[in-house]
Amino acid sequence: MTTLPSPALLTDRYELTMLQAALRDGTAGRRCVFEVFTRRLPPGRRYGVVAGTGRVLEELTRFRFGTPELDWLADERVVDDATLTYLADYRFGGSVVGYAEGEAFFPHSPVLVVEGTFAEAVLLETMVLSVLNYDSAVASAASRMTSAAVDRPCLEMGSRRAHEWAGVAAARAAVVAGFAGTSNLEAGRRYDIATIGTAAHAFTLLHDDEASAFASQVDALGAGTTLLVDTYDVKEGVARALAAAGPGLGAVRLDSGDLAVLAHEVRAQLDAAGAHSVKITVTSDLDEHAIAALAVAPVDSYGVGTSVVTGSGAPTCGMVYKLVAREDADGVLQPVAKASTAKTSVGGRKSAARRVVGGRDAEEVLVTGPDERVRAASSSADAAREAFDALEQAERGPGELRPLHVPLVVDGQVDERWTGPQGVRAAAERHRTSRATLPRGARRLSADEAALPTVTLTLPRS
Amino acid sequence: MTTLPSPALLTDRYELTMLQAALRDGTAGRRCVFEVFTRRLPPGRRYGVVAGTGRVLEELTRFRFGTPELDWLADERVVDDATLTYLADYRFGGSVVGYAEGEAFFPHSPVLVVEGTFAEAVLLETMVLSVLNYDSAVASAASRMTSAAVDRPCLEMGSRRAHEWAGVAAARAAVVAGFAGTSNLEAGRRYDIATIGTAAHAFTLLHDDEASAFASQVDALGAGTTLLVDTYDVKEGVARALAAAGPGLGAVRLDSGDLAVLAHEVRAQLDAAGAHSVKITVTSDLDEHAIAALAVAPVDSYGVGTSVVTGSGAPTCGMVYKLVAREDADGVLQPVAKASTAKTSVGGRKSAARRVVGGRDAEEVLVTGPDERVRAASSSADAAREAFDALEQAERGPGELRPLHVPLVVDGQVDERWTGPQGVRAAAERHRTSRATLPRGARRLSADEAALPTVTLTLPRS
Repeated sequence: MTTLPSPALLTDRYELTMLQAALRDGTAGRRCVFEVFTRRLPPGRRYGVVAGTGRVLEELTRFRFGTPELDWLADERVVDDATLTYLADYRFGGSVVGYAEGEAFFPHSPVLVVEGTFAEAVLLETMVLSVLNYDSAVASAASRMTSAAVDRPCLEMGSRRAHEWAGVAAARAAVVAGFAGTSNLEAGRRYDIATIGTAAHAFTLLHDDEASAFASQVDALGAGTTLLVDTYDVKEGVARALAAAGPGLGAVRLDSGDLAVLAHEVRAQLDAAGAHSVKITVTSDLDEHAIAALAVAPVDSYGVGTSVVTGSGAPTCGMVYKLVAREDADGVLQPVAKASTAKTSVGGRKSAARRVVGGRDAEEVLVTGPDERVRAASSSADAAREAFDALEQAERGPGELRPLHVPLVVDGQVDERWTGPQGVRAAAERHRTSRATLPRGARRLSADEAALPTVTLTLPRS
Repeated sequence: MTTLPSPALLTDRYELTMLQAALRDGTAGRRCVFEVFTRRLPPGRRYGVVAGTGRVLEELTRFRFGTPELDWLADERVVDDATLTYLADYRFGGSVVGYAEGEAFFPHSPVLVVEGTFAEAVLLETMVLSVLNYDSAVASAASRMTSAAVDRPCLEMGSRRAHEWAGVAAARAAVVAGFAGTSNLEAGRRYDIATIGTAAHAFTLLHDDEASAFASQVDALGAGTTLLVDTYDVKEGVARALAAAGPGLGAVRLDSGDLAVLAHEVRAQLDAAGAHSVKITVTSDLDEHAIAALAVAPVDSYGVGTSVVTGSGAPTCGMVYKLVAREDADGVLQPVAKASTAKTSVGGRKSAARRVVGGRDAEEVLVTGPDERVRAASSSADAAREAFDALEQAERGPGELRPLHVPLVVDGQVDERWTGPQGVRAAAERHRTSRATLPRGARRLSADEAALPTVTLTLPRS
C-alpha cells in the first residue's frame, strides 16, 4: 500500500501561531476538551451521517512534522525555535471518543470529543474538520440515495467530479452509507471496496461501429459484462448487445435520455428476446430524487456520480471544533464558551445518548454535568448505562438511553478496529442499524426539520 | 518537498477495462483526440475560470503504475496480464494543448485537448477531470469574490470545510483567481503562496481572561498581529486589544454578528483612540454577495472559508472528457460524436479564440475545420493568427481573434512553466488580464446568461 504523506501541514497557520504563544506563556500544557459538532443540518435535511472517523484515526497516526516540514516552517519564520522543537517531537498522547462511524447525528451532537493538552489538541483542528466535514457530507447525501433505492444497489461513480483524493474518501463514505461499490480503484485498494465499471462511450466511438465495440468488450471481459447501449440508437444498441453476448449478457447501461421511459422499453425488448436475466443499470446525473422517481421503473441498479461526491447540495457539514473546557491556573477543568452574538455554544464536556421509545428513536440527548461523570459516561457503554441508571426515573425520561460515544483513541493509542477496511465494514453495519430506528418519516426526501429534537440531560454531582 | 503518491489508481475502473479490450482487439494504438469542455455554466454564472491545469501537468509526470499498484490490479483480476505489462511501462507520450490556466471559459470552450493513442489518453480521463472540475469550480467562485472585493484583499481560510488535500488545491485555485493568501500551510509550501492566520477563539478561551490572551499573543507574535476581538464583548475586546498592543496593532478580526454595523462601530472606536492605522478584517461565512454588501463598510480585508472551497453553490464544473476524433482502420483521423439524445457533442478537433472588438470580448469562437489546420492553430499563437489571417474578412468577422490554446505537453514533455509556484503566478496574471476584457456587466453577481455567446468558425480546406 502506498502511504500518503503526513497531513501535518494540511493545517491552518493559526494553529501553529497559537501554539507558539501558548508555549511561551505556559498555557500550552493546560488540559483541554475540544468538541466537534454542527449547529444545524443543511436546509431541509432530517439527519446527518457521521463519516470519516476511521480516516481521522488513520491521519492521526501519520500526523508528524518531519525534517522537510520543519525546515519549511523555519525558513518561512512561521513559528519560533521553541515551537519547532515541540513540533519535531509531536505525537498526540491524548484521548478521543466519538460517535461510531455510520451513526446518525443531529444539531449539536458531540460527534467527536478530543482531550489532551492545548498544544496537542489544537494542532488537530484543521485535519479533523476537513475529514469529518467532507466525508460526513457525502455519507449524509448517500444515505438518502440508498434509502430511495430501497433494495437496489447504488454504485458510486463520481471521482471525476471531486478533487482526485476526495474521490477516494467519497467512495469510502458512500459505502459507509450503504453504497454497494465504487468505480474508484484506489478506494477499492485502500478499503477493500468492490470496484465496478466496464466501458464508456469513448470505447464504442473508438471502434468502426457499435457491433465491433461490443464484440471486443465481450471477448475481453466475458458475456457477463455490462454494455453501454446509448451511444447511437438505444433499441439498435440493445439488439446488438444481445447479438454480441447472447442471453448470458450481464447488463445494459443507459446514460442519457428519459431513463424511466427507456428502462421500460429496454426491459420489454430484453424480455421479448427471452433475455430475462439481463439487468438494466442507469447512470446520468442521478440524485436521491431521481432515484426515487425511478422506483417503479424496471431498473436493477443506480450509478451515482456528481450528486453523491458533492453532498447533493450540501458539500460540507459545517462542523466546528470548539474548546468547551480547559484547566485553569489551579489545574481545575473549567467549562468555557464564546459569549458574543449568534455563534453561542454550550460550554463543558458532553456525552450523548439516543433515547429510544418503543423501538424508535425519540430524542438526541446531550449529557452534561460534572466533568468526571460525563467523561465516564463516554468511556464505555457499561459506564454510560450505569450513569443513566443512577438518575431518578423522572429525570431520566421514558424509554431506553442508547449511549453514543465509543472510545477511539486512549492515551494516544488508536483503536484500529475503526480504521482500514474493517473500519469501513463496521461503519456500514452501524449505519444500517442506526438508520433502522430513526422515526417514521425521517427518511422522507422532502424538506423538513431535524427528525429528532436535541435535548439535554444533566447528571447529578454524586 | 514531500512528493504525493502516484495518482494512477485515482482512476475509474472502466478506463482499465476499456484499455484491456482495446489492447486485445488492436484499437489501443489508434491515435485519438479527447477534448475537455463543459456543456453549460452553473445556473446564473456568467463565466468560468480555468484552474488546475498546472496540477494536471504535475500529476501527469507522476502518473505511473508501480509494483504495489500492479500487484493489486493482478490480485483483484481487474485486468489481464497483457494489460499489466502495458501499464508497467506506461508513460504518456502524447501532446496536450489547452487554455492557459486562469483564462475565462464558456459553454463548450475546449479548455484541454489531449492527443495520443487511445491507450495512453484514455487512462488520464479521471485524473484530468477530477483536477479541472474541482479547481475550476473554486476559481470560478473565487473570481466573483475578488471582483466584489475590488481592491480589498481576499484571504482563503476554507481548508476545514473541504477534504484535506482538496484544501490545498482550493487555496491554489483561489490565488489563481485573485486571492492574496491562504491559511493553508501546505499550499504555502507547495506553491509559494503567502500564508496568514494568528489566533482563534480557542486561544482566548484557553486563557483566564481576554486581556491575558491578547498580551500573550502580542508577546509572541508582535504588536503587528491581528487580534480576534469578538469572543466576549466586541467593544471591550477592541479596547483590550489596543491596551495590549498599542496603536501599532496590525488589525482586529470580527468573526460574528452584523459585520457591517460592527465594522462601522469598531472603526469609530479605533479612530477615536487615534488608532487610524489599525485594520479591520472580517470573516464569518462570507460569500461574494456578503462581500459586495460590505463594500461601503470600513473593512480592510475579507477572510473567506466555506463558500470558496465549495464553489459557492457550484462545487464542481461538470467538465467532461470526450473522444472527438480517432484514427480509422486506414490510419485516417475521423471525427466522432455520441449521437443519441440530450448529450450530443460536436465531433472533430477544435481550437479556440476570443473575439475582441473595441478592447472588449465579444464572442467565444470554436475553430473547426480540417484536422491538420485546426491542430496547427492550437500549436502556437503565431500559427493561429496565420490560420485566421488566411480567412476572408467576411468569414473572419469583426475585431481581433485572440488565440486561446497554448501548448502544455509536447510528445510527452511537460512545459514546466505552467507547474509549481511559477505556474500559479502565471495563472494569476492570466486571470487578471483575461477578466479585464470581459464584457461590461459580465462581473455582475446577479444571475444571468453566459457573458459571451459561443460561435463556430470553420477554417477552409486550404
